[in-house]
Amino acid sequence: MTGKNYIGFQQLAAGSMTFRTYDPVQDRPNDTLFTEATSDEIEQATFLAEKAFRSYRTTEGSKRAAFLRAIADEILALDEILIQTYMKESGLPQGRAIGERGRTVGQLRMFAELIGDDAWRKPTIDRADPSRTPVPKPDLRKLLIPLGPVVVFGASNFPLAYSTAGGDTASALAAGCPVIVKSHPMHAGTGELVASAVIKAAQAAGMPEGVFSNLNSSGIEVGKLLVMDPKVKAVGFTGSIGGGRALFDLAAQRDEPIPVFAEMGSVNPVIISRGAIKNRSGEIATTYSKSITLGTGQFCTNPGLLLTIDCEGLDEFIQDLGRKTVSVDAHSMLHPNIHSAFQQKGSEVLSQEGSVLVAEYDKPTQNNYAGARIATVSGEHFLRNTKLHQEVFGPFSLVVRCKDEAELVQVIQSLEGQLTGTILAEKEEYTNLAAVIDALQDRVGRIIFNGVPTGVEVCDAMTHGGPYPASTDSRFTAVGNHSILRWVRPFSYQDFPKELLPEVLKEAK
Amino acid sequence: MTGKNYIGFQQLAAGSMTFRTYDPVQDRPNDTLFTEATSDEIEQATFLAEKAFRSYRTTEGSKRAAFLRAIADEILALDEILIQTYMKESGLPQGRAIGERGRTVGQLRMFAELIGDDAWRKPTIDRADPSRTPVPKPDLRKLLIPLGPVVVFGASNFPLAYSTAGGDTASALAAGCPVIVKSHPMHAGTGELVASAVIKAAQAAGMPEGVFSNLNSSGIEVGKLLVMDPKVKAVGFTGSIGGGRALFDLAAQRDEPIPVFAEMGSVNPVIISRGAIKNRSGEIATTYSKSITLGTGQFCTNPGLLLTIDCEGLDEFIQDLGRKTVSVDAHSMLHPNIHSAFQQKGSEVLSQEGSVLVAEYDKPTQNNYAGARIATVSGEHFLRNTKLHQEVFGPFSLVVRCKDEAELVQVIQSLEGQLTGTILAEKEEYTNLAAVIDALQDRVGRIIFNGVPTGVEVCDAMTHGGPYPASTDSRFTAVGNHSILRWVRPFSYQDFPKELLPEVLKEAK
Repeated sequence: MTGKNYIGFQQLAAGSMTFRTYDPVQDRPNDTLFTEATSDEIEQATFLAEKAFRSYRTTEGSKRAAFLRAIADEILALDEILIQTYMKESGLPQGRAIGERGRTVGQLRMFAELIGDDAWRKPTIDRADPSRTPVPKPDLRKLLIPLGPVVVFGASNFPLAYSTAGGDTASALAAGCPVIVKSHPMHAGTGELVASAVIKAAQAAGMPEGVFSNLNSSGIEVGKLLVMDPKVKAVGFTGSIGGGRALFDLAAQRDEPIPVFAEMGSVNPVIISRGAIKNRSGEIATTYSKSITLGTGQFCTNPGLLLTIDCEGLDEFIQDLGRKTVSVDAHSMLHPNIHSAFQQKGSEVLSQEGSVLVAEYDKPTQNNYAGARIATVSGEHFLRNTKLHQEVFGPFSLVVRCKDEAELVQVIQSLEGQLTGTILAEKEEYTNLAAVIDALQDRVGRIIFNGVPTGVEVCDAMTHGGPYPASTDSRFTAVGNHSILRWVRPFSYQDFPKELLPEVLKEAK
Repeated sequence: MTGKNYIGFQQLAAGSMTFRTYDPVQDRPNDTLFTEATSDEIEQATFLAEKAFRSYRTTEGSKRAAFLRAIADEILALDEILIQTYMKESGLPQGRAIGERGRTVGQLRMFAELIGDDAWRKPTIDRADPSRTPVPKPDLRKLLIPLGPVVVFGASNFPLAYSTAGGDTASALAAGCPVIVKSHPMHAGTGELVASAVIKAAQAAGMPEGVFSNLNSSGIEVGKLLVMDPKVKAVGFTGSIGGGRALFDLAAQRDEPIPVFAEMGSVNPVIISRGAIKNRSGEIATTYSKSITLGTGQFCTNPGLLLTIDCEGLDEFIQDLGRKTVSVDAHSMLHPNIHSAFQQKGSEVLSQEGSVLVAEYDKPTQNNYAGARIATVSGEHFLRNTKLHQEVFGPFSLVVRCKDEAELVQVIQSLEGQLTGTILAEKEEYTNLAAVIDALQDRVGRIIFNGVPTGVEVCDAMTHGGPYPASTDSRFTAVGNHSILRWVRPFSYQDFPKELLPEVLKEAK
């Protein structure tokens, strides 16, 4: 590990601003000193990306697929050093590191599979009809083409799967777009290692220099310059609402506005029916105590809001959930800053009128370790105060007690956009769920039935996105094959000579 | 004609601001006095639209299809009054009125056909695998669902096909989104007539009140309030860069930003090769004199920029093109304001350094009639001065003489985003076109070979859109079946009970 930036194939570090990553478990900075990219280096990276785009966009799908597969192989070849660095920069356990690496490699191979043939580019052919009156019909052929250089902002909570060579990068490279990663400062070492794998794969696969760069930065300046660079044509981001919105605003204010797909905060409301409380209160408390604390609550699909209706057994359920949740061992959060935000946001929610603490982890913990908290509030208080709607990133969940179904629907309607909504209900209640489903559908990208929102399956039928602020454009997903559609545009060829058409459009010309 | 707004099914006009449309051929205002929508009426329209959305979005495709077909029938039933009003409010001839009505009706029926079954909603099914380790795979099913109420801004140059019940409205209604039209003030009467047809069809087809409203306005205030209304979820616009950008900026600044698809200006560069000049100079001059003056040059795909390379015969071609173009009879423009903008913008281009007038229509004309102008300039001057790049909306074209192919490529690269680019070249030149095609592809949404950009075929393989400012989001098209994708988002159902799934997703559950 050098602490340098990858500007195309070169490792450079001309800057004077440096930073270190932090080991939250050991509660001390890691060794490597990372150097922030300078404005010259940023310019050089976007210059190379634009140049690379000229040839990269026309590479055959099978060649880009080989490149993606080579990235996956190189990531695996990093072996122990990658897993160790990941753990030291995130405090996440080894099993998670290995699992997330598997997901990262799996996504790269999934996109390689997708672009093995050109069907994903939706070739569409409308043949000419010279005899049509009053005007002959021209021959029109359409294909999806890549937008241009894409800037990817890695996520703090997924150092591998949604960062350097994560879903955004894999889908953009698959589409034919060069990628410039603004490395996440909390795991810059993991980022550099993965970047080295991408660069190695690019060189071995004969990809043009500039197809990938990786820039260090601990503040907002590097990202700002990247998004404002006219050579950049799209942005992918995973992180906070504040960060994502700032980038969205910058991109919208450019002379040439560009699309920003930002996947941001979400409290992932879970509706628990009376029947579910009656029939499986204990089981739900067990399942949700695990979902709330999974990965120390640091998933974008963490269930931060449980919506209930007053009924017999509800008090017992809430107490049971509290007990079970706080009995889960505390674990380190990703970074001291994330830990202090967790404490502060949770306390803010608890200090609101009507908000009551149900249970709190109370064993002594190391620094940066987060013990879970469960709170409760009435539907009436919740409806009056949007401070209760905010995400507390970490092992925290707020149980809202609505007085009836009408108030429950109102509560759902009062929420901002969400990645997911979950319904726990019994078969005999299905026919009465129309209003709840209807309200929920307006607010989320995915509804889960009798399950948990955590665990985002990577497949074609997945929607990971949703109405703002779950994402900045609900028309796209950040997970699965269809996420490639964020980086392409339709392009039409009218009466084009066969010899000049892309191969896939030549058919029957 | 009443001059009133349609707020849902009601005709209202509580406001005090009024305006008239203008007959540019007779050079006098038309009779009907139109009343601008008040802020209360706007609020009422968006309230009804949001309410209508609740039921409209789940109507079966076949019912929405019947609604669209009924709109088409009702528009045809307006018969002579519609054609006469169209002509009096646009100065466009009867043939064009009838042709555009045919296109409008055709688009409505095309979308009706599309939504007859649910394939367009891309149902995607990933079945569960309970035996998968380490985690069982859930059942996931995905479908496109409508965004919500859409605001449509009609185009001055297409009173029927891109206005009240034009492409944006037809595609949004087809998608399941209620539509509020901000009627174009230049053809508010045509708009009211078409709106009456939509309302009649909605009532007959049993559609909910609020599925469609039509608001009058001669300024920017009504549009502004509509775009800022939190109940509005997307915007369609066809018109000037200034207008479209203003709406885009407003929408991006909302607490909840919403997508704006604005189709804006374009000069539609046409590259004419040396071989084409050598072999068919006269034919090209004839064809392009017609394309430049078609509809008095008032098409968004009007060829406003012809790019050539110095060669034998080029002077003669330019003179011939000038002669032929200015020999086409002058005709009325859409409105006195559009006529004066045409004169002023053309003169501005002609006053730039190096810009030379080739030919100008010089017969006496009525007020508001536009005679064509052809100008020429060197590639060097063009590259130095972006004032020469601007659109002169009307029968005007600027011939750029590049000194060589390298300068031609530079000129293409210097252009802003365009709807179309056209290449006129000979077979033996095809192998040398790579750099030109490559540069052009970066700048346009559609390339035409040996044809003219005017005439936008309505079909699946059409892309009408392109890099900014041709449109505000190059990932979508404004014409053809795929334009429906602007108004929908993917939605996933995880482990959903069969009885609660939408019909099309129930398969094999």
